[in-house]
Amino acid sequence: MSNKIKVGIVGGTGYTGVELLRLLALHPNAELHAITSRGEAGTAVADMFPNLRGFVDLKFTDPSSSSLKDCDIVFFATPHGVAMKQSQELLAAGVRIVDLAADYRLQDTAVFEKWYGMPHSEPELLKESVYGLPEVNREKIKSARIVGNPGCYPTATQLGFLPLIEAGCIDLNHLVSDAKSGVSGAGRKAEVHTLFPEAADNFKAYGVSGHRHQPEIAERLGVAAGKPVGLVFVPHLTPLIRGIHATLYARITREEDFQALFEKRYANEPFVDVLPAKSHPETRSVRASNTCRIAIHRPQGGDTLVILSVIDNLVKGAAGQAVQNMNIMFGFDECAGLRQVPVLP
Amino acid sequence: MSNKIKVGIVGGTGYTGVELLRLLALHPNAELHAITSRGEAGTAVADMFPNLRGFVDLKFTDPSSSSLKDCDIVFFATPHGVAMKQSQELLAAGVRIVDLAADYRLQDTAVFEKWYGMPHSEPELLKESVYGLPEVNREKIKSARIVGNPGCYPTATQLGFLPLIEAGCIDLNHLVSDAKSGVSGAGRKAEVHTLFPEAADNFKAYGVSGHRHQPEIAERLGVAAGKPVGLVFVPHLTPLIRGIHATLYARITREEDFQALFEKRYANEPFVDVLPAKSHPETRSVRASNTCRIAIHRPQGGDTLVILSVIDNLVKGAAGQAVQNMNIMFGFDECAGLRQVPVLP
Amino acid sequence: MSNKIKVGIVGGTGYTGVELLRLLALHPNAELHAITSRGEAGTAVADMFPNLRGFVDLKFTDPSSSSLKDCDIVFFATPHGVAMKQSQELLAAGVRIVDLAADYRLQDTAVFEKWYGMPHSEPELLKESVYGLPEVNREKIKSARIVGNPGCYPTATQLGFLPLIEAGCIDLNHLVSDAKSGVSGAGRKAEVHTLFPEAADNFKAYGVSGHRHQPEIAERLGVAAGKPVGLVFVPHLTPLIRGIHATLYARITREEDFQALFEKRYANEPFVDVLPAKSHPETRSVRASNTCRIAIHRPQGGDTLVILSVIDNLVKGAAGQAVQNMNIMFGFDECAGLRQVPVLP
Amino acid sequence: MSNKIKVGIVGGTGYTGVELLRLLALHPNAELHAITSRGEAGTAVADMFPNLRGFVDLKFTDPSSSSLKDCDIVFFATPHGVAMKQSQELLAAGVRIVDLAADYRLQDTAVFEKWYGMPHSEPELLKESVYGLPEVNREKIKSARIVGNPGCYPTATQLGFLPLIEAGCIDLNHLVSDAKSGVSGAGRKAEVHTLFPEAADNFKAYGVSGHRHQPEIAERLGVAAGKPVGLVFVPHLTPLIRGIHATLYARITREEDFQALFEKRYANEPFVDVLPAKSHPETRSVRASNTCRIAIHRPQGGDTLVILSVIDNLVKGAAGQAVQNMNIMFGFDECAGLRQVPVLP
Repeated sequence: MSNKIKVGIVGGTGYTGVELLRLLALHPNAELHAITSRGEAGTAVADMFPNLRGFVDLKFTDPSSSSLKDCDIVFFATPHGVAMKQSQELLAAGVRIVDLAADYRLQDTAVFEKWYGMPHSEPELLKESVYGLPEVNREKIKSARIVGNPGCYPTATQLGFLPLIEAGCIDLNHLVSDAKSGVSGAGRKAEVHTLFPEAADNFKAYGVSGHRHQPEIAERLGVAAGKPVGLVFVPHLTPLIRGIHATLYARITREEDFQALFEKRYANEPFVDVLPAKSHPETRSVRASNTCRIAIHRPQGGDTLVILSVIDNLVKGAAGQAVQNMNIMFGFDECAGLRQVPVLP
Repeated sequence: MSNKIKVGIVGGTGYTGVELLRLLALHPNAELHAITSRGEAGTAVADMFPNLRGFVDLKFTDPSSSSLKDCDIVFFATPHGVAMKQSQELLAAGVRIVDLAADYRLQDTAVFEKWYGMPHSEPELLKESVYGLPEVNREKIKSARIVGNPGCYPTATQLGFLPLIEAGCIDLNHLVSDAKSGVSGAGRKAEVHTLFPEAADNFKAYGVSGHRHQPEIAERLGVAAGKPVGLVFVPHLTPLIRGIHATLYARITREEDFQALFEKRYANEPFVDVLPAKSHPETRSVRASNTCRIAIHRPQGGDTLVILSVIDNLVKGAAGQAVQNMNIMFGFDECAGLRQVPVLP
Repeated sequence: MSNKIKVGIVGGTGYTGVELLRLLALHPNAELHAITSRGEAGTAVADMFPNLRGFVDLKFTDPSSSSLKDCDIVFFATPHGVAMKQSQELLAAGVRIVDLAADYRLQDTAVFEKWYGMPHSEPELLKESVYGLPEVNREKIKSARIVGNPGCYPTATQLGFLPLIEAGCIDLNHLVSDAKSGVSGAGRKAEVHTLFPEAADNFKAYGVSGHRHQPEIAERLGVAAGKPVGLVFVPHLTPLIRGIHATLYARITREEDFQALFEKRYANEPFVDVLPAKSHPETRSVRASNTCRIAIHRPQGGDTLVILSVIDNLVKGAAGQAVQNMNIMFGFDECAGLRQVPVLP
Repeated sequence: MSNKIKVGIVGGTGYTGVELLRLLALHPNAELHAITSRGEAGTAVADMFPNLRGFVDLKFTDPSSSSLKDCDIVFFATPHGVAMKQSQELLAAGVRIVDLAADYRLQDTAVFEKWYGMPHSEPELLKESVYGLPEVNREKIKSARIVGNPGCYPTATQLGFLPLIEAGCIDLNHLVSDAKSGVSGAGRKAEVHTLFPEAADNFKAYGVSGHRHQPEIAERLGVAAGKPVGLVFVPHLTPLIRGIHATLYARITREEDFQALFEKRYANEPFVDVLPAKSHPETRSVRASNTCRIAIHRPQGGDTLVILSVIDNLVKGAAGQAVQNMNIMFGFDECAGLRQVPVLP
């Protein structure tokens, strides 16, 4: 037990928090040291999340009195804007940081301010931070002090577009991501529109005219392309607890063996599974797991590729990817704590 | 009661059948006269569908012994290929026909044969028949002897694209319909993939490489455009009982006031509701009703329009549209029997 | 239109409110005159509830400036405690009242105060008021100025127990109601425990040690029995939007033809449907309708009867029963506005 | 790897089969050796169950040609009646057996024949077999050659009643189990009544007049009591994928500290969690895990106890309990392969 790293979680009362706890509770190299919540200080974690009974003995502590600075790593599962305010102090104490909110995602601070409604208080740390998509930034993550964990839609969308963009074989100006998310993506907040009677047996798009994940995806795909990309991003709310299905459309500009392109790109990736051509990945095939499954289609042999990409928004789209990043940062087996068979049915 | 028309239903044991019964049971101008089922002859309809207790007293009768020829109109809620075989005999008896299957949808019999795996036995009747989308063919429907009721996806997709195609302001070669359907669209058949534990909390695309509704949509949009169109159609199965949400993508080729275009096109349509710009129609806002609601978006002011179109697949996508067609064929108020407030929540 | 009564609704932003609007929008004898909401004054009702587009043109008005006193009847779809405060003024103006909250349910004001956390401000009006279960109090409802609309669980439970209690053939000291409700029963309030990710794919009991509907049921069954009854009431939350299924257990003390007893008791009730013996009523068989369906079982021929009783909690359990009460109060056809086929699937 | 036992599964195409595979794929002491299916021979297991991609490389083999006799243990995840026919041959080869169907549950062969519609072909093996509820029969399971794995409802119900029955403090003649199951309990069979559009947003009781699990529960509770018990058992179908919630009613005949009774009875049980008094266990708190959580209530301080007992029907109610039995039979850590945090949300 003594050679495990000490892990802290700030703000563990939401869905990404409980999912971090689920994954870390049995992690062979990590030990939960502190979990903070201003509102729930003193409450046993397992009283709030009964699935953790017998696995997590910690109580929530007040952020001010907590021992976060004793940790080797701290995860922020907080609202946007919290992590950047506490980063300097933790870094100074030698703590490494993975932020599951948006503070360290967008490199363009003007875009950040526009979409998140606050100035970025740590532009220097932002520059230093690494965008935590291991399939792109694995090397940088190893030595990063701060990792900005990608958004859920951005993870599913980028993994589906990256091989094509890196190969330079599609029209970069007219990318379309038609993405569908389970309701846990909206968080564990008391709101009317995500109540069961509102969200069950219902399907709708939202944020079509503008959603925070559009600039994140566009910025990162632009980095991959070496130039700006044009992206239409349409998110939808679907009556799933967990799961994202991104249906991606790209116009072919140069012929390739697209199936081979994807298989080669992800051949060594432990958490990206390229299905046989013409498959239809299901969200439940990755439920409660860190895997992204991808399939490639070319309907009627036309000039449009359709890429299907599924993840569990709380795992590969949030907590699982954060643990994967931790594993990389500390030199653990990248799959440590994440070797779980998806739950089906 | 004497001045009501007599209605027959062939094959009323599926979801379109029970929905026809729900709508017709209280129709002011129609009276259920016969409902046939080979397998369920003798069973009281209300024993199979308990919601009909107290509203429908009929029993299923064997097709051979039934009194379909006494009817003024017969609806076919049968597998593909049944209606065409019985059409001649019914027409000869003066009965008018609405087929809810695909026998009278595709005018191209080669395409029909390819997708439905059987030759078309009545090519002359097919030519005579009218495609029953009232928003396009109302005048022809009035005097039609045979109406081919449109598919569910085709209804939602066509109503969303038609104003743009008729106005000639979009790229016809690269239409995309990313469509999501509730599970009742797969019918009331004993199959594994639509079992509750398979379809609940799960989302997937299907038929991406080819789906029967792609040629139907393409043919009809081609008629509207006056030339062939290129359409990528991607259907998805979503954990709804009822509902279709079509997310449509079109490249703008000529500027228009698109909102005004839609509002004008559907100003007199009783069952198409154009929402204010930037709205997000929900499938539940049309649950159990014959309305199609549509909203228009232009993300980031770019060159791609996003049209959102929702219907109840069993009503405007099947039984409700069939009743609307009947109302038109017999000169009834077009809304007769269909003036129902959607059920929300 | 001139001979329709004027209807007001106080607090129409919840689920019972929108359901009242759905039922009243097409009621042949009633006209919506005013709908109030402190928080939403000025908002078009159809903007909040998109299913009402095209059916309801009203805007929410502030309670203070509203024309409730011009109405013939006012429905309170408000939190507990609101109706009693406004009753005197409305009654003085000649307005009749149906309260869908609990102000006029419990005759015992001490019990009311215990369970609802407030003293009853109108004990005299409470005495005058009539408990609005038409199957018991139809005659009194006709002339009532104030009707206390029963709770949802109490409606399903009472209708299942009443024939047995009235016949005096069961042990009154050991009644059990094991009841399951859809999530809309918790109301349209922003709360965590009824979020989709909390309530979907989950089942739990709640309030086992004490629930407000236990004393309401016990009081009313006591009235029917002529003496106090002992009732164990266990409510459960189940992933339905709508629907209550009450499974009732009663020990037989005197043999009867129980099936005949129920059929006779409800022979003339338009909204109670006694199914054939050994049936299993489904909640969806009454979805969006005002019907209660009941079936009687006697497992293994033992001494315990099992009664199954299903309603739609928003209709027979709330808004539909309120409209039924209105119909009785004003001498309309008791089924006016309520003759709707349940929506299945 | 060489010191792992060899495991065979007969009939692994259903839900208990895929769940066995999920649990065994990562089991530290067991290795999947053969999995048979008459209909799917040659199909890769991971093609049928995409969650197993990357975890299970086996193909289904034909039962006749399979190497089941090389196994140390064979699980039967088959229809009732299959295991007993193959038992002699496997036992002769030294293979131990866990049957997840009903062949080795009911000791009374007349009752078996009545409820399962076939005579029992191996009455001697039945006598030898052990009913695999570890909380009762752990010692016998250690040396058993054949274990009859309990049904799902019987597991949840027995664990809730056992402490009371063993203590002799309740009325044995009037036990009530009002139980609710997710739809996966009906199996992965193509049937209409478990289709998504039938089972979603719907709740119903079934088998009230007689269900196969009633005699199983009654027989086993009778063994615990030392005399016959009277049990009313009412199962319900609820729109969950997984999960059973049993609500149990028992009349107190002797006062006890019931909370302490339960806590003491299960103090050393790794998979039974007695919650604090007046808790409400949720099915999702045990989702995808082998735990049973139990809470005790005494409403209004009356003479009726209400016990709430939840399990995951596919884990503690089937595959997980089977693995727990295997662990006991082979002397492994009883929790091996089963130490998984329930998946919430």
